[in-house]
Amino acid sequence: MKPAEGRRRVVIEDIQPQVACGLAPARRFLGDSVQVSAAIFCDGHDHVLARLLSKYHSDPNWLSTPMTALGNDLWAAAFSVDRIGPWLFTIQAWVDHFDTWCADLRQRLAAQPDLASPDPARRDLPPQEIPLALTIGASLFDQTASRAGASSKGSKAADAKQLKSIAASLRTLAGKNSALYQYPLTPQDEALAARYPDLSLASLAEKELRLWVDRERARFSSWYELFPRSTAPAAKEDQPAAKENQPDPTRHGTFADVELLLPEIAAMGFDILYLPPIHPIGRAFRKGPNNSTTPGPDAEGSPWAIGSAEGGHKSIHPALGTFAGFDRLLAATHANGMELALDIAFQCSPDHPWVTQHPGWFLHRPDGTIQYAENPPKKYQDIYPLNFESSDWRALWDELRSVFQFWIDRGVRVFRVDNPHTKPLDFWQWCIDDLHRDSPDAIFLAEAFTRPHVMYSLAKRGFTQSYTYFTWRTEKSEIEAYFEEITKPPVSDFFTPNLWPNTPDILHASLQTGGRAAFQQRLILATTLAASYGIYGPAFELCENLPIKPGSEEYLHSEKYEIRRWNRRDPNSLAPLITLLNQIRRTNPALQSDLSLHFHPVDNPQLIAYSKSAPAASDPVASEIVSGKAAIDGNDASAAPAAPSVPGDPAERANTILVVVNLDPHYEQSGWIDLDLKQLGIAHDETFDVEDLLTGIHYQWHDRSNFVVLSPTATAHIFRLTRNP
Amino acid sequence: MKPAEGRRRVVIEDIQPQVACGLAPARRFLGDSVQVSAAIFCDGHDHVLARLLSKYHSDPNWLSTPMTALGNDLWAAAFSVDRIGPWLFTIQAWVDHFDTWCADLRQRLAAQPDLASPDPARRDLPPQEIPLALTIGASLFDQTASRAGASSKGSKAADAKQLKSIAASLRTLAGKNSALYQYPLTPQDEALAARYPDLSLASLAEKELRLWVDRERARFSSWYELFPRSTAPAAKEDQPAAKENQPDPTRHGTFADVELLLPEIAAMGFDILYLPPIHPIGRAFRKGPNNSTTPGPDAEGSPWAIGSAEGGHKSIHPALGTFAGFDRLLAATHANGMELALDIAFQCSPDHPWVTQHPGWFLHRPDGTIQYAENPPKKYQDIYPLNFESSDWRALWDELRSVFQFWIDRGVRVFRVDNPHTKPLDFWQWCIDDLHRDSPDAIFLAEAFTRPHVMYSLAKRGFTQSYTYFTWRTEKSEIEAYFEEITKPPVSDFFTPNLWPNTPDILHASLQTGGRAAFQQRLILATTLAASYGIYGPAFELCENLPIKPGSEEYLHSEKYEIRRWNRRDPNSLAPLITLLNQIRRTNPALQSDLSLHFHPVDNPQLIAYSKSAPAASDPVASEIVSGKAAIDGNDASAAPAAPSVPGDPAERANTILVVVNLDPHYEQSGWIDLDLKQLGIAHDETFDVEDLLTGIHYQWHDRSNFVVLSPTATAHIFRLTRNP
Repeated sequence: MKPAEGRRRVVIEDIQPQVACGLAPARRFLGDSVQVSAAIFCDGHDHVLARLLSKYHSDPNWLSTPMTALGNDLWAAAFSVDRIGPWLFTIQAWVDHFDTWCADLRQRLAAQPDLASPDPARRDLPPQEIPLALTIGASLFDQTASRAGASSKGSKAADAKQLKSIAASLRTLAGKNSALYQYPLTPQDEALAARYPDLSLASLAEKELRLWVDRERARFSSWYELFPRSTAPAAKEDQPAAKENQPDPTRHGTFADVELLLPEIAAMGFDILYLPPIHPIGRAFRKGPNNSTTPGPDAEGSPWAIGSAEGGHKSIHPALGTFAGFDRLLAATHANGMELALDIAFQCSPDHPWVTQHPGWFLHRPDGTIQYAENPPKKYQDIYPLNFESSDWRALWDELRSVFQFWIDRGVRVFRVDNPHTKPLDFWQWCIDDLHRDSPDAIFLAEAFTRPHVMYSLAKRGFTQSYTYFTWRTEKSEIEAYFEEITKPPVSDFFTPNLWPNTPDILHASLQTGGRAAFQQRLILATTLAASYGIYGPAFELCENLPIKPGSEEYLHSEKYEIRRWNRRDPNSLAPLITLLNQIRRTNPALQSDLSLHFHPVDNPQLIAYSKSAPAASDPVASEIVSGKAAIDGNDASAAPAAPSVPGDPAERANTILVVVNLDPHYEQSGWIDLDLKQLGIAHDETFDVEDLLTGIHYQWHDRSNFVVLSPTATAHIFRLTRNP
Repeated sequence: MKPAEGRRRVVIEDIQPQVACGLAPARRFLGDSVQVSAAIFCDGHDHVLARLLSKYHSDPNWLSTPMTALGNDLWAAAFSVDRIGPWLFTIQAWVDHFDTWCADLRQRLAAQPDLASPDPARRDLPPQEIPLALTIGASLFDQTASRAGASSKGSKAADAKQLKSIAASLRTLAGKNSALYQYPLTPQDEALAARYPDLSLASLAEKELRLWVDRERARFSSWYELFPRSTAPAAKEDQPAAKENQPDPTRHGTFADVELLLPEIAAMGFDILYLPPIHPIGRAFRKGPNNSTTPGPDAEGSPWAIGSAEGGHKSIHPALGTFAGFDRLLAATHANGMELALDIAFQCSPDHPWVTQHPGWFLHRPDGTIQYAENPPKKYQDIYPLNFESSDWRALWDELRSVFQFWIDRGVRVFRVDNPHTKPLDFWQWCIDDLHRDSPDAIFLAEAFTRPHVMYSLAKRGFTQSYTYFTWRTEKSEIEAYFEEITKPPVSDFFTPNLWPNTPDILHASLQTGGRAAFQQRLILATTLAASYGIYGPAFELCENLPIKPGSEEYLHSEKYEIRRWNRRDPNSLAPLITLLNQIRRTNPALQSDLSLHFHPVDNPQLIAYSKSAPAASDPVASEIVSGKAAIDGNDASAAPAAPSVPGDPAERANTILVVVNLDPHYEQSGWIDLDLKQLGIAHDETFDVEDLLTGIHYQWHDRSNFVVLSPTATAHIFRLTRNP
């Protein structure tokens, strides 16, 4: 079957960014300049023009931005996103008969008959060709004038008059039948005509693509996880017990205790305080210290065994405090310039009210019991999984969604979601979409330590950030390969990493054996490889490194099962380094986004080097509002190709950071870095300044090869590059 | 909004092959085993099963092929295509509760309480766990029996009975409460249950993907182009005039003259004889020898200046013969085991009947004239282009389509389409689709010497084969890069190259200066790099190498503008080499497809080495017919996972060819090839036989490093590899 309009000759293919063929939105962040590219071409030799159309999903009007030809049929343009939530973009392109005519006329003029020329091609141009071309141009100007004149608006009416006058002068010129013609148009004439293109046969991309825009915190965030149960001061800070870091299980920490720590956490430079589940902890099969299944009566249990007679996911563990206490903590967190992240774990202690109220949400065995959860080889005897194949799945989905809504309504906007990969992908897509409709500022961090396809699929279905394999990537080659994958398209178009050197579940072998140097090294990698990172503290800053047994990643005396006391005044604490790193992150925009990450070769496998850079504030994009549907139907004539937006010149990057880390926690390592100067905006043979932000020391570096030495104590350089004046 | 069924937990992503997000069909060839892959996974730890569903588009039933897990959530299966035309395929996948249960039971049995064990984990399995698991298994077998029993067919009823009996025995076993259980199922029991999977919550891929299957000639073809006008015997073959290859313009060649040459062309091994346009040639602005615009009255003109008072695209140039003569030539071509390809050029001489009958199909200038065609810097004063922006475009499309139909109706099935990139892409999509509906065996070769995006877009819109940049790729690095691109996905999924070392339009500089060695070298590259190639003869085999002027790719005395006489008996003709190469291509399946092309490093940039291999006849794919819609709605229970299809073992390739070519036409070159042994199916340290099919000489090669010397006269090896017994 023929298309409705077979004369739309321009083809628009392979629009980027595009995730899963447009099934999922690409993700960007507030304030981003969204670079869009496509292959755009038509048959034959006619010139083509294209414009990017973009809008916030609910806006009636499209923003039109002229696209620039990059060569070989690739076109690009950018638009800025100034609101969070769903955006739409598409591309419109058309044959530019006016520009085709200009180029054709220029060719004919250049080939005007020269009877004296020995080249026959210079003698045989039919004499009527140029006057004919001028007459054709006059018609084009007349048509352009009609399009301008269709509007009754003052300036357009004046344009129409001016266009008609150009048409008339071209006709006059044609009548003269001159022997030698000059090009008859001024740049102003051409620009005026270009403001009223003929869109009647414009092609529109075959789909509108979606973009989801998150707020800044989704891109750049520093998370601090702590167990509130362990925040009760063991004694006065200056008393010996505290200094010796003795466990003192006499009092369960409360929201009020956490509140007292807020200034200290904020001073370290964190912006998200993340608490493990704060809900009532079940009694049945409650775990004791070190994951014991035969604990004493005073066992505190795991916060992830959610639900008891005191309530479920919308209740608070009485030992932590009340809703009033929670509200105070939330307000105080905000007052300290941070946000509070809650841990949402969709699973139930056997005592959870859902178990009796909604037996259909659980899978009962022939003897009436429910099989506890397993994440092989881990066993969670104190936890029942939910059965998403329940025939009552609609009610289950609604209830789970309402858990998020409950805490959103209390003012929480950041959620760390426990094991999302054990709940259906379709559930997350619906749940997050639905929550985002009213709360586009909600952030969801997926704790999806699972296979790559599942991890990525969760991101495509709406999770804002994700835990990563960083925790297990310790060799240079595997760090480079992994970060090349996750910070470049297609993955970076939908996946935002959040790096954790440790979690309550994962004490990696490198930390167990590498001493303080390993903690420093992993911290520096986490804070500089990605714009979002987190630590499970105070275990991290105090370099807690004892596993429950050799070969295990579980902590000895894991805080998951008992109260710990931490000596936050330990002089060996990494808190000063953390504070410095967070300061460096805040003052260097280069470290606040992942997309510019670039690895530089070093001739020593124990040394890794990478740079990140942030562009100078970009020029405003030349674009204009066009009326809604009319723009796309081709009845609109406001597709003016104003000054095109051009991707930033790497030489003009405002902030460039170069990080070099010694991956060996035991020995000094040295080597030559082979800098990719183009990436750094440094010229060949140039001498430039590098300031180590960790020490304040300046060095003068020269050209691409530079030498570094790093010891286990001075484990890294974080250089800020500055071109010498 | 929630999905209609939220319990379909399996996700199917990134199905391959998929062209342009499924907008265009992937292309395969008759008899191909179509490898399909996808990422398939579900939440949690349940096992997953998947099947590939495929069918010829009009079949009511789907063919179901069980998919195999390749690891990391990648799954694959293949189906064979035994009909040309449109096929559909999709994937269905579901949670395999039965297999999940088997694995769970095995784990529990392995962990049975061992009271003597020092490991507490070996002592604490609750005693009821295994009997409970057995009871759950009994229920699964009962459910499976119900699905089998739903059919009244004899064998299924027997299966249901057997399944019920297994369920009963599991219950009995559970009741025994044994101290130590053995795994209770036989492989036969498991296979029986697996024949009746529960598809009620199966997921179906979000789209059905299209596949276009062409006949063999679309994949593997050897084209010979000649100008019928130049086929009149100048004199008796044994007379001096013929031997001296003197032009003798006394008689215009005819279809009957071409007929006489057919045995000779067939004997060279060609299977497609391609003729430039055979339609009446216009008189207006007719071109003379060497593209002269001021020819004498006897000028023959260009066959691409189509149309005169004698007719247009559905007429025959009277000097060539009549329709009866054409029909005889067509029949004789077939009788000689070849097909006839016509050149379809949608453009008109000013004398073409369309110019007066359909003035709306042309763009008239203000003075009433029509601008002639240009393909800068070339000028075609004798040709008018069609105006596809005509308001009468529907009639124009219909008429153009009818040109193909006219010749299809006379028995032609192969078309070389001139400059398709100067006609709208949407036109081709419609035209080829529409022609293919009734004539799926029609082959369209795109003469699209244009930019890559346009060239590829024509292939996506239906062109079977395409001319390529091969003609201009002469350096090793550029040959390797180009062929890596066009013989691997994504490009190879829609684009089939046809290599031409020369055409009437292109006498490449390398042929002008490289002498006979250059012709040999380019011929060997064309015949072995791609399964489809063509030459413009006899210019090629007679090593015609004079350009019209230095720096031009146009032939002196181009046959486009005048009759040439060729001495087909020239003892220097490359015809014997062509014959040998076509023979090698016919007897070695490795050279009949492009997808296995693999380059091997040589330590000399003047030597290029590459291999191709064809698998042994593949095992039949285990698959079965399932009823149409029911299969997809999940009411069908015939998704038996029979023996899975596994991609071929490279060691078992039936035919492997290794080509080494000296790219230097002037000097001997030698070097060490570093063979990729895995690709060749050769073991490390193995000695194997290589037979040069050009000379018949055998060599014993050993391991990966082997030495070659090639001179300008013995310009290549075409080795057939055989493992020693």
